[in-house]
Amino acid sequence: MPAADPINCADYERLAEELLEPGAHGYFAGGAGDERTLRDNVEAFRRWRLVPRVLVDVSQVSTATTVLGTEISLPVVVAPVAFQRMANEGGEPAMARAAAGAGTVMCLSTIATSRPSEVAAAAPGGHRWMQLYCFKDREVTEAIVAEAVESGFEAIALTVDAPWIGPRERDLRSGFQVPAEIDVPAVAAATGSDGPVSVTDVFDLIDPSLDWDDLARLVESYEIPIILKGVAAADDAERAAECGVAGIIVSNHGGRQLDSAIATIDAVGDVADAAGDRVEVFLDGGVRRGTDVVTALARGARAVLVGRPALWGLAARGEDGARHVLEILRSETALALALCGCPTPADVRGKHVMSIVR
Amino acid sequence: MPAADPINCADYERLAEELLEPGAHGYFAGGAGDERTLRDNVEAFRRWRLVPRVLVDVSQVSTATTVLGTEISLPVVVAPVAFQRMANEGGEPAMARAAAGAGTVMCLSTIATSRPSEVAAAAPGGHRWMQLYCFKDREVTEAIVAEAVESGFEAIALTVDAPWIGPRERDLRSGFQVPAEIDVPAVAAATGSDGPVSVTDVFDLIDPSLDWDDLARLVESYEIPIILKGVAAADDAERAAECGVAGIIVSNHGGRQLDSAIATIDAVGDVADAAGDRVEVFLDGGVRRGTDVVTALARGARAVLVGRPALWGLAARGEDGARHVLEILRSETALALALCGCPTPADVRGKHVMSIVR
Amino acid sequence: MPAADPINCADYERLAEELLEPGAHGYFAGGAGDERTLRDNVEAFRRWRLVPRVLVDVSQVSTATTVLGTEISLPVVVAPVAFQRMANEGGEPAMARAAAGAGTVMCLSTIATSRPSEVAAAAPGGHRWMQLYCFKDREVTEAIVAEAVESGFEAIALTVDAPWIGPRERDLRSGFQVPAEIDVPAVAAATGSDGPVSVTDVFDLIDPSLDWDDLARLVESYEIPIILKGVAAADDAERAAECGVAGIIVSNHGGRQLDSAIATIDAVGDVADAAGDRVEVFLDGGVRRGTDVVTALARGARAVLVGRPALWGLAARGEDGARHVLEILRSETALALALCGCPTPADVRGKHVMSIVR
Amino acid sequence: MPAADPINCADYERLAEELLEPGAHGYFAGGAGDERTLRDNVEAFRRWRLVPRVLVDVSQVSTATTVLGTEISLPVVVAPVAFQRMANEGGEPAMARAAAGAGTVMCLSTIATSRPSEVAAAAPGGHRWMQLYCFKDREVTEAIVAEAVESGFEAIALTVDAPWIGPRERDLRSGFQVPAEIDVPAVAAATGSDGPVSVTDVFDLIDPSLDWDDLARLVESYEIPIILKGVAAADDAERAAECGVAGIIVSNHGGRQLDSAIATIDAVGDVADAAGDRVEVFLDGGVRRGTDVVTALARGARAVLVGRPALWGLAARGEDGARHVLEILRSETALALALCGCPTPADVRGKHVMSIVR
Repeated sequence: MPAADPINCADYERLAEELLEPGAHGYFAGGAGDERTLRDNVEAFRRWRLVPRVLVDVSQVSTATTVLGTEISLPVVVAPVAFQRMANEGGEPAMARAAAGAGTVMCLSTIATSRPSEVAAAAPGGHRWMQLYCFKDREVTEAIVAEAVESGFEAIALTVDAPWIGPRERDLRSGFQVPAEIDVPAVAAATGSDGPVSVTDVFDLIDPSLDWDDLARLVESYEIPIILKGVAAADDAERAAECGVAGIIVSNHGGRQLDSAIATIDAVGDVADAAGDRVEVFLDGGVRRGTDVVTALARGARAVLVGRPALWGLAARGEDGARHVLEILRSETALALALCGCPTPADVRGKHVMSIVR
Repeated sequence: MPAADPINCADYERLAEELLEPGAHGYFAGGAGDERTLRDNVEAFRRWRLVPRVLVDVSQVSTATTVLGTEISLPVVVAPVAFQRMANEGGEPAMARAAAGAGTVMCLSTIATSRPSEVAAAAPGGHRWMQLYCFKDREVTEAIVAEAVESGFEAIALTVDAPWIGPRERDLRSGFQVPAEIDVPAVAAATGSDGPVSVTDVFDLIDPSLDWDDLARLVESYEIPIILKGVAAADDAERAAECGVAGIIVSNHGGRQLDSAIATIDAVGDVADAAGDRVEVFLDGGVRRGTDVVTALARGARAVLVGRPALWGLAARGEDGARHVLEILRSETALALALCGCPTPADVRGKHVMSIVR
Repeated sequence: MPAADPINCADYERLAEELLEPGAHGYFAGGAGDERTLRDNVEAFRRWRLVPRVLVDVSQVSTATTVLGTEISLPVVVAPVAFQRMANEGGEPAMARAAAGAGTVMCLSTIATSRPSEVAAAAPGGHRWMQLYCFKDREVTEAIVAEAVESGFEAIALTVDAPWIGPRERDLRSGFQVPAEIDVPAVAAATGSDGPVSVTDVFDLIDPSLDWDDLARLVESYEIPIILKGVAAADDAERAAECGVAGIIVSNHGGRQLDSAIATIDAVGDVADAAGDRVEVFLDGGVRRGTDVVTALARGARAVLVGRPALWGLAARGEDGARHVLEILRSETALALALCGCPTPADVRGKHVMSIVR
Repeated sequence: MPAADPINCADYERLAEELLEPGAHGYFAGGAGDERTLRDNVEAFRRWRLVPRVLVDVSQVSTATTVLGTEISLPVVVAPVAFQRMANEGGEPAMARAAAGAGTVMCLSTIATSRPSEVAAAAPGGHRWMQLYCFKDREVTEAIVAEAVESGFEAIALTVDAPWIGPRERDLRSGFQVPAEIDVPAVAAATGSDGPVSVTDVFDLIDPSLDWDDLARLVESYEIPIILKGVAAADDAERAAECGVAGIIVSNHGGRQLDSAIATIDAVGDVADAAGDRVEVFLDGGVRRGTDVVTALARGARAVLVGRPALWGLAARGEDGARHVLEILRSETALALALCGCPTPADVRGKHVMSIVR
């Protein structure tokens, strides 16, 4: 029963489902296989409880923090989501303006429907990370990185949980393709074709041989820091830290790659412990409320990424909708911080959560 | 399928839902956010089991105990609930008579629809605590406390889990306001207006900067003991004890403030352990049966508070209904004590419960 | 979808529900309060799993065992159930013949609708225990015991979990009474009236002051062994053993007394450990399958009691139905023993079960 | 909502249910008793989560492994399922061709509707194991083994979890029998009759006295290795290893024998630990996805067996359907391996899974 005016992320989710073409909705909403991990990312947050502290002066609460040294106004970053023009004609530029308006980072997908330079131009004052799939064609890959660097993107979020395409059965059943009239510049550059793009086309471009040695080389060669996206295990976090990454995103690709993979909130604690002070750890997946944000902070995340919620905002109401989703999450996070007795994100500790099953 | 005559708290809950105006019902029944904690307060009791003892002489069972030295006839205190005239024209005076009739304490809300002196006059023989929101306007706050002290209230239950307003989405969607014809004296005193009151208006008055130092000063300055309401963590209980509070109410504000907060029955054990013999610990939230009362005692509570059950009684049948709810809880508690082999509340021990999940 | 011919206990449960008058069905089927324990007795078995052993010669499997030295053909005893004539005109004599026919013990309720001597006469070759409520009127109580002893009953099953009447809300709502035309001899003897009997009438007779000293005296004075019925805790089992009881029945009165009480299969392990070799331990409550019987044995029970399943058999098809239920349980138990690699009940060990939650 | 073209095992399950005669479907789909174990075999996989590793070169992923030294192209073996001609007229020969085509082993049931020699002739290049029920009539048993050996079967999978027939209530209610026109050669040989076969007829033939000494003798006497099928406990695995078996199949007979038996994925870890390097351990039961296969490997299985999924394929589309099911499982397994960072089955370790309940 969404109000005429949406007041939470779930309202936007329902609005978006009503508005989107079914195939496109299935692409954005769906997950791999039986969608166990898709659901568990959200449900696992319900196995954790907040343990608030009281009698702290919370007349001034700030949600501001930094990620990789960049000041952001809330510990929520916009996750990379492909093909955003399919959700709203404003596409990635609209999302970039929404993120900039909300005072946070937007992470642009390699397989966006706008070029990095266009996105940068749309929100010149904003902060941006470039999500990167390392293509087999390293020239195209380097061109993408170069354009991102030149356009002022501040980090590369290298996705490593997608060396193979996840089994997205909704897409298989709907025959999903990106509509022919929507361009995907990186794919066009890599294939030399601008016909309609399917997800399989994209994954055919990705280099499945990428390994830790490659990562070490990329860290050396890139002018901007690398964040490793798609990590679930402490030993991988340890190794990533040794390779010199600046950040780790605990993610299972929104439940779209390995079904049955551990929920991000269940994984982030061990990863954060392993990373220690060397590397910033982020959580991506399942965040729908400010209380989820604070739960993630308590388990060791420095900030979270939200993909679908921002996209539902974009789908429902363009830039304003995406911006509104971020503002909802900001005010919910501020409130959760206040009610936990934490005037800032940095005040959140492990003691602020407990599991009800372990 | 409630009988013509309600026989348990759930019957009263259904009756009240039928009788109340939807907006008012939503205000009383609702919780914060997704209402996870609202539900979990009740459901968490189902994760605990009673382990009865037998062959104890239970020909005489007494539910009587003391709270802060005051004798009460059952280990159940009436929790503060705002705006009771909205449930029944008898309002807080009717509730006060119900509590006095049942032989227990009524805790009056700061944002009651009757003044403390009126409530005292309505039930002169009764015992009363005054729930206090510390307003930014300390003069108004002190006037409330002074009136309570003068009217024979025996303790101040200082609420500390509500420095900010909880996100009560039912109210947002219903546009809930207290009807204009119902006065809320404390709010009128603080705002100098007697227009219709919304929950937001109330929270605008509350001082979110209250901290442990303030608490220590209040303990020093007040003539009557302070009970800290809204504690969930052992370290906060420790600190409260050091500040000299007389009691601690483990509460999450009935699931109305921090959604995802730990259920009270899951939190009370650690708090009671930390408080030890120095401070009396009470549980507020989720109690619907006498077996819940005994479970709370076994986890270390000295007594419980019930808010909604008493209110549903008031809504359904005025003073008689509220009194009946308390009598139901008394007889259920007596029975649960008898069947656990505990002639008095003081006989209940940790060994009388076990968790089925941990 | 019960077959024309019932093949398991659940089939008989459904048949009985169709046949019984609703008030009587509610009396037999119902439990205390919210019926949490009623349900949990059954559901808790689903939190335990059998771990079978293989390559044991099971060409000969015997379900026979002994209880208090009496040989029985299956580790299942018929639990005491009141007012059996209300289920079927054959009443307790029919149940006694069913038990004797199946080669096991029938435990007769104090508040049966036939006298002990009638029941003994109905099944002269059978084995019988007498369930005893200790009435305030000790003369009547002793007369019941004397008649039982004289009639060849082999033990007294002293119920100690019912010093007060459980809150059976189905009966409250239905206004349940035993129909006037059905006699309850023990109640008539104690009250001197033979008007229609309610459950409250019965409990008014029971002595709630019975304690461990009384038990010790009864053990001394009775000519036949005492089995203590209604124990859930290890320390009570220890004390019962010291008092010289011959057996302990882990029971929560079929979920009819203390709602929220621990399920019997969750309690029996600790009780059996405490009892050791001194006292035989039985489980009563929730058994619906031969696999449940074997689970109970693995947790330390020597045998189980079944109340409702036998009663549904009696209600559906009189003596033949009750007998059939016992034969179903025998063949299911034999099969479960065989498939666990246990040629006899004595071969079942703790290693044959594990919990999936702890 | 299966697509016109089935894309996963669940699609085939639905197709098969539509196509099969209800009695036959009940026989294949059903389990023992309340079907707790039938369901739990599948559901228990949902209590385990995969913990992927990243940045491993997975440009080359092989699902190939060996079982008892035989190279197979995926760690999935076709489990023995009786009466396959009842699912599809192609029967076991079609299944054998499907398995051979997919590059894996087919395990033929003793109570197949084709002789071992026919099945061998149908897929001469394939690998085959012979499932064996040891009949009371050892001559018939040895004749079956001899035919299997002569026909090139590479191992005997001796079933030991079925000394007695499981209580399959669907069959009892449907009156299931194998249609008279379908031959079951082993049963005909043992009974000397070729009338319609019921499951009871089969179990009447099986020797329930088989024990560890018999096993040791069989291991000595057979020319081909013995795999023990139906083990759930570590101590049995230890003893099997001492007897010289080549493999152990952790199985509960697909939930068709001992209801309430532990799910195979919950049992396999302890069995594999006990078996160590001496004996290969396989898991049979509940596998529906490639992620289930990898979960089983992570818990110590060398490969899994699938019964119903392959049968649903056979029922829906004959040999092609069974083959397609195996190809689906192969590609899902390859993908799960890739996304776990394991180029081969041998790379999967215990660290790749964790339980969410323990």
